[in-house]
Amino acid sequence: MARWDPGTEERLTKAALELYSEHGYDSVTVTQIAERAGITRRSYFRYFPDKREVLFAGSERLPAAVADAVRTADETASPLTATLDALAQVGTQLVMLVDHAAERRAVIDSSAELQERERTKLAALTTAIRGALDQRDVEPGRAGLVAQIATIAFQNAFFQWVEAQGQIDFPTCLRSVATELRDTLRHE
Amino acid sequence: MARWDPGTEERLTKAALELYSEHGYDSVTVTQIAERAGITRRSYFRYFPDKREVLFAGSERLPAAVADAVRTADETASPLTATLDALAQVGTQLVMLVDHAAERRAVIDSSAELQERERTKLAALTTAIRGALDQRDVEPGRAGLVAQIATIAFQNAFFQWVEAQGQIDFPTCLRSVATELRDTLRHE
Repeated sequence: MARWDPGTEERLTKAALELYSEHGYDSVTVTQIAERAGITRRSYFRYFPDKREVLFAGSERLPAAVADAVRTADETASPLTATLDALAQVGTQLVMLVDHAAERRAVIDSSAELQERERTKLAALTTAIRGALDQRDVEPGRAGLVAQIATIAFQNAFFQWVEAQGQIDFPTCLRSVATELRDTLRHE
Repeated sequence: MARWDPGTEERLTKAALELYSEHGYDSVTVTQIAERAGITRRSYFRYFPDKREVLFAGSERLPAAVADAVRTADETASPLTATLDALAQVGTQLVMLVDHAAERRAVIDSSAELQERERTKLAALTTAIRGALDQRDVEPGRAGLVAQIATIAFQNAFFQWVEAQGQIDFPTCLRSVATELRDTLRHE
């Protein structure tokens, strides 16, 4: 009974999102989330360390998965192409796990604390990509910039994907952002 | 005597940097910083809300100053050019205020909490730039991307400027990063 259970994780995420939307992020407690999901407050902490992390379930696997995909990408691909391909591949799996993406976005946008956590998550992604590019012998300065640009592309593509409500797939969103980025820097 | 005094702010920044370098960021208290600067703990809070903010003195003025410069930039300049020009102009004034930049960098790199605060500062810059571009009637999606790219350029230029230890001026660092960014996106 004390084991980690994916069904419980999903129930907690759902319960948290509902409560945050109903009462506002600040006024909801871990106890309330646990109660609505039918578990104890103590069990909650087997799943998430705090009330922020519950909105980022699954995201802890993203940096390592993307780094793996970057390392094993086609050797002839440019650093940015290798990274965007990796993000398209891993991102497609990730977004399938995101339920109620629009509500989740609205809750994050309502809280400085949650935005902070989101930035920390994105920074971890940047660091992982930079590390993987280092292993592909990309010059450190270049690796850093590619990792930062790729993270922006990921973030904006995810945003577009949420806005499109399932009408556009994630790789298409990512390609569209990459094109816009190129465009932005070209029109100097 | 209870008035805000720029000399005291500078002494606090210097004291904090020394103590953080000597004992590590985590183990230093606001009381110790105040003591070394020769003021009371209570007076400390007239200058900074916490022990993180003391390392970012002056940065609260950056977003508004950059936004002003973006709004008043040459009307014919592209969004990115207008923004980079604004950052070169305001950044040059800002970096002159940064003492002991290398030690400051080392302290920030040593603490997850400080890196988080730095990301929050950069996010405020991005938001301010996006707002100023909106007022220049730049299309919202484009304004968002330009603001994000410009923030990356600023961050990396500041980093290069610190590394160069005063041998390269800030606008030159910024131009060099902008060129690298363009290069990175061109070699697709």
